[in-house]
Amino acid sequence: MSFSFNIEKELIGTRARAGVITTPNGEIKTPSFVVVGTKATVKSLSPEEVKGLGGQVVLANTYHLYLEPGEERVKRSGGLHSFMNWDGPTMTDSGGFQAFSLGVAYGAGIGKLLKKESKEIEEEEKTPPLAKITEDGVAFKSHIDGSEHFFTPEKSINIQQSLGADIIFSFDECTSPYATHEYQKEALLRTHRWAERSLNAHQKEISKQALFGIVQGGRHNELRKESAQFMVSLPFDGFGIGGSFEKEDIDKAVGLVNDILPKQKPRHLLGIGEPEDLFNGIEQGVDTFDCVAPTRIARNGQLYTKNGKINILNAKFKDDLSTLDDGCGCFACENYTRAYLAHLFRAKELYGLRLASIHNLYFIVHLVNSIRDSILDGTFHKLKKNFFAGYGK
Amino acid sequence: MSFSFNIEKELIGTRARAGVITTPNGEIKTPSFVVVGTKATVKSLSPEEVKGLGGQVVLANTYHLYLEPGEERVKRSGGLHSFMNWDGPTMTDSGGFQAFSLGVAYGAGIGKLLKKESKEIEEEEKTPPLAKITEDGVAFKSHIDGSEHFFTPEKSINIQQSLGADIIFSFDECTSPYATHEYQKEALLRTHRWAERSLNAHQKEISKQALFGIVQGGRHNELRKESAQFMVSLPFDGFGIGGSFEKEDIDKAVGLVNDILPKQKPRHLLGIGEPEDLFNGIEQGVDTFDCVAPTRIARNGQLYTKNGKINILNAKFKDDLSTLDDGCGCFACENYTRAYLAHLFRAKELYGLRLASIHNLYFIVHLVNSIRDSILDGTFHKLKKNFFAGYGK
Repeated sequence: MSFSFNIEKELIGTRARAGVITTPNGEIKTPSFVVVGTKATVKSLSPEEVKGLGGQVVLANTYHLYLEPGEERVKRSGGLHSFMNWDGPTMTDSGGFQAFSLGVAYGAGIGKLLKKESKEIEEEEKTPPLAKITEDGVAFKSHIDGSEHFFTPEKSINIQQSLGADIIFSFDECTSPYATHEYQKEALLRTHRWAERSLNAHQKEISKQALFGIVQGGRHNELRKESAQFMVSLPFDGFGIGGSFEKEDIDKAVGLVNDILPKQKPRHLLGIGEPEDLFNGIEQGVDTFDCVAPTRIARNGQLYTKNGKINILNAKFKDDLSTLDDGCGCFACENYTRAYLAHLFRAKELYGLRLASIHNLYFIVHLVNSIRDSILDGTFHKLKKNFFAGYGK
Repeated sequence: MSFSFNIEKELIGTRARAGVITTPNGEIKTPSFVVVGTKATVKSLSPEEVKGLGGQVVLANTYHLYLEPGEERVKRSGGLHSFMNWDGPTMTDSGGFQAFSLGVAYGAGIGKLLKKESKEIEEEEKTPPLAKITEDGVAFKSHIDGSEHFFTPEKSINIQQSLGADIIFSFDECTSPYATHEYQKEALLRTHRWAERSLNAHQKEISKQALFGIVQGGRHNELRKESAQFMVSLPFDGFGIGGSFEKEDIDKAVGLVNDILPKQKPRHLLGIGEPEDLFNGIEQGVDTFDCVAPTRIARNGQLYTKNGKINILNAKFKDDLSTLDDGCGCFACENYTRAYLAHLFRAKELYGLRLASIHNLYFIVHLVNSIRDSILDGTFHKLKKNFFAGYGK
């Protein structure tokens, strides 16, 4: 099967739609939450468990797999599907975000955003990453061994071709939302030239891989518009919407972009995954999402419940014989108590991380799947209202 | 069902036998390798996976569960079976070994054996653990928070009653094999008095739990004999054979003890689990074994194969597209290559620990299960010869 996207139903009064993306390795019923398997493994889980919790598609990371084990090894193993034994659809990102955020040796990177207070960052990040970003690409040092590497759009596409995912992304620069307008504009135009080069590299051979172009533009609406308009002019199979958003920007920026992007092509919102963002993103016309949050917070003991997040390390859960989230149908909730999970986390047992990851992924994947159902049967607004009545916002 | 043991077949010319232990939670076909689930979880694995790899029975640890989460919490969860969601037979040890080896704050403990050269230990351990071993029991400090605790035979049995395993063990002192004969004799007599007290504590209420007495005696044959003879005089449901053996002692000491123990009661060899020890132990009349080795070495990247152990971190495996162990039917071997496992270990991915644990447990559990089959169909010696022709010895 080649790549296609079909819209089944649109939700009147919003930009939301339910559809089906078809890939050579199966269908993705959208809206869908893409399960992140950064290093060709979904943290602690088997592919069978990912399927069992409702996962339809796995996204692996180009930067990480390039460094370890190397894309050629994955290719010799028969590609990402075969290497990790996942027989459903797959995606790889372009590696740009990680080269900037993890491979930060050269200059200020967006990774620092995660560790500092906003004000501090604002000052620092007004200076663009002097760094080794050139017209040709980006130089970075491996976060593993400090070795030097250079990614170009062509290199990113070649790596992604070796990895062999069904959906791949064009190489882009994800700027800090605190960068100056001047720098963001400059970076955006470069990202556009990189998009054209990504497309050329991709078309050099006949490919079954779908290539998505990434819209950037930071927090500036006119840059977002400009970026969307440019991307639409290129023959991409779909689009990613990238950038380190502030939470309040998601509604506006995403809707703005999606009004420009063609309806008949799928749209992926990169790195976003909290429940409120998922509802909002879908209302603004997003078809797929990916985010490491469900498994990352799971490893810290944080669990989604229909009444909001809880931390299983809280002392009160040591004696709580109820399930993690009443009514949840995941493997962890069907078989274990909060008391058991609290014990596993206190005892630092690996099985605790696994159960928490299963639960959180199930929660988020099923939430998006149920939003899809609600679009199809016209109960979206009711679902949203009921969800936030319990979850809080 | 109450506890029973039935021998199906004995292997002429050896002490080996195949049988069935019946417990309130199901059967254990012996010889059998007991899967260790120290803290009420088999490191990284689900109970379903433990069953899937052939595991029949899980052994949890009294010392660990007493400290965390506390035996009362396990009891309130419905006992060990319900707490950890394992519906097959279970065992708990007495906690003695761990109180001496982990709770070492008071004096020389056998735990130190693991970290020092033999000569160094010999000197040090000739001095008996002055420590807080009294006629009444043993004082120890928690390895978690340094808090002080006191185990008596009665306390150990009470904890094990709260945990609720099908098979429990009498409270014993596991001496260092380097302790003086004088000290070993003294400790042995105390262990015998503790065995009587364990039995009394156990009989105080009508119990479905089977209680095994533990034979000690270190490396001294006459102490081993004396211990076996004493234990046989008590109405235990079965016997454990304990002690920090040197490898070469297993054959002699175990055979010696089993010639004294009654044939019609099951015998468990504590903490032993390398392939050669399993064959030897079974030939000497052992019915069940437990050992943390399969999962512990798995977490260091060591994998059993029919040609001996390999370490998956060896560079050559990065490009090895063969299965972990050709012909192995475990989940890891059926689905992944050595190259993938090598990647997971290098990337420090939890799924690697899980696959390695599944493989090693499958290897050992199936080895013992196949030894059982070979006793039943008369091919034991052929199996042993073929195994070691490949595995080396």
